[in-house]
Amino acid sequence: MVPGQESLGKRRFQLESPGTLAGMCSLPEYREPLRRVAVTGGTHGNEMCGVYLARNWLQDPGELRRPSFSAMPVLANPAATAVCRRYIDRDLNRTLTLTFLGSKATPDDMYEVKRARELNQLLGPKGTGQAFDFILDLHNTTANTGVCLISEASQSSFNLHLCHYLQLQNPGLPCRLVQFEPSEAETYSVDSVSKNGISLELGPQPQGVLRADLFSRMRALVAAILDFIELFNQGKDFPAFEMDIYKILGKVDFPRATGGDLAGTVHPQLQDHDFEPLRPGEPIFKLFSGEDVLYEGDSIVYPVFVNEAAYYEKHVAFLKSEKIRVSVPALPGLTPSST
Amino acid sequence: MVPGQESLGKRRFQLESPGTLAGMCSLPEYREPLRRVAVTGGTHGNEMCGVYLARNWLQDPGELRRPSFSAMPVLANPAATAVCRRYIDRDLNRTLTLTFLGSKATPDDMYEVKRARELNQLLGPKGTGQAFDFILDLHNTTANTGVCLISEASQSSFNLHLCHYLQLQNPGLPCRLVQFEPSEAETYSVDSVSKNGISLELGPQPQGVLRADLFSRMRALVAAILDFIELFNQGKDFPAFEMDIYKILGKVDFPRATGGDLAGTVHPQLQDHDFEPLRPGEPIFKLFSGEDVLYEGDSIVYPVFVNEAAYYEKHVAFLKSEKIRVSVPALPGLTPSST
Repeated sequence: MVPGQESLGKRRFQLESPGTLAGMCSLPEYREPLRRVAVTGGTHGNEMCGVYLARNWLQDPGELRRPSFSAMPVLANPAATAVCRRYIDRDLNRTLTLTFLGSKATPDDMYEVKRARELNQLLGPKGTGQAFDFILDLHNTTANTGVCLISEASQSSFNLHLCHYLQLQNPGLPCRLVQFEPSEAETYSVDSVSKNGISLELGPQPQGVLRADLFSRMRALVAAILDFIELFNQGKDFPAFEMDIYKILGKVDFPRATGGDLAGTVHPQLQDHDFEPLRPGEPIFKLFSGEDVLYEGDSIVYPVFVNEAAYYEKHVAFLKSEKIRVSVPALPGLTPSST
Repeated sequence: MVPGQESLGKRRFQLESPGTLAGMCSLPEYREPLRRVAVTGGTHGNEMCGVYLARNWLQDPGELRRPSFSAMPVLANPAATAVCRRYIDRDLNRTLTLTFLGSKATPDDMYEVKRARELNQLLGPKGTGQAFDFILDLHNTTANTGVCLISEASQSSFNLHLCHYLQLQNPGLPCRLVQFEPSEAETYSVDSVSKNGISLELGPQPQGVLRADLFSRMRALVAAILDFIELFNQGKDFPAFEMDIYKILGKVDFPRATGGDLAGTVHPQLQDHDFEPLRPGEPIFKLFSGEDVLYEGDSIVYPVFVNEAAYYEKHVAFLKSEKIRVSVPALPGLTPSST
């Protein structure tokens, strides 16, 4: 995010001091009910749970209604969805930057740049008081992540309470929160257009495949997230708690031969082991020659998005994260004047 | 296959009477060692085991050498492989027909039509005595097929012996043979270019993902198949046996709404249950409305390629097969004059 952008109405759940996250979360600066909520699917056109949930809700949005708001379903990338590809010209979920959104439109613009401007009109404008209050962006991954929420590091304790709520609602189902800071100078994701937002990832599911079990699970998770927003809007108190979050440290590329082609792939001992500890000296890659490549770091990390199909072109075999225990303060009920 | 094509040197392992397959297999008509063998990967550019095996063997083909022959590695669809998609313009594995191969080339031809002609020059010409003796074509599927060989119904008992050899070599690993008859008037697959051929499928693996376990398994299976050919070429006797094969009966499309869009997907009770019996009255689809769709056939079938990503566009949720017990006669050793 561009520094100072909060003053434009963005991130109203901004932490007072982001530096305190690893220890104690602070309270949101100010709080209002979330009235304008969107649920976006098909940001990547071959991640089928969100594609078909969005299509389903566009036909019948009844499931997205709550007493205090009605979430708007959006099929984020219709052209990519129509051909069942991640994107047409470039990754839409990396295109919602103020630079792209503010650039002069030309007929030769890439499809996703045009679509980003449309989404910004619909759900933004990004960084302004007119932007939607919350975007929930739906994704699938080929990695064995289970249920996973992706939140920008600059996001508020609201997202942590949301994740905790899902954990309490689904005691047998791990629901992890991954926190990242965009490596570029500005935010770029679809959910960065709204004042607050989060991505929901569900895996493993192959690209282009719709599994009934994951479809049902994502549908139930979206319902629970809307329920949480409704409870917040109604003025419910959410008590303090502690939870583990996974903070992205960086990426690890595949081993490569001269010329850049793969020289091996993710080791069987790491494959499917997202969110499990990786210790120095443990194998991470199996070379085509048969040799193992060992993790050479000096501390335990927690790999996530292990062998995600879409990340090959981004030169990412997995992301390294650190597991951090955070104390999240209570989210007190909205005052009657707010609700 | 076009009737009478066998007289051009094709299908030298042709059964005397294809009609006997469901009961007792007959002997090949005549038999010679297989000297010209190709292993093709990347026929579909996002099926990564074959893509990376072919690339690896093109660098170092030593693994493909046997005393009596050296198999030639081929990256079948380099353009699709370069962009990690199944195909560029049309499915290459449906393009090796005599109609496409014999049509006049024009600059506007689809990429895969051009590439089919190149492959026909390299490995054919299809239906002639100059064609390769054997093509082993490597595939992955998102379906939970495990190890699976695909053989045309017109193929010989040689393929059944090959499958049986793999079963004996890998006692803990089911290795099934799927037999199909092309629904069109002529054969169309990459392995139909050679006199005999077979496809090896390995699943489940998402498109665009290379799993080390499946890569190693496919590599070992290819080695075993080449070993079998070598034993055949050396004059080994292969005794008679019985085995189950799965004969394709037809396809089943997804449930669809008005307009053709999906109205549901594969039922959780069917998902991942390839090659297991499906009984009348058992659920096959879960509609987005929550209702189940039941199988209405009047006999047990064995679904295969359940929820394969690439088959959505072909309107195939799964293929129905029947399980047939076949008696395969001995494959007697080649006489010294042949070897």
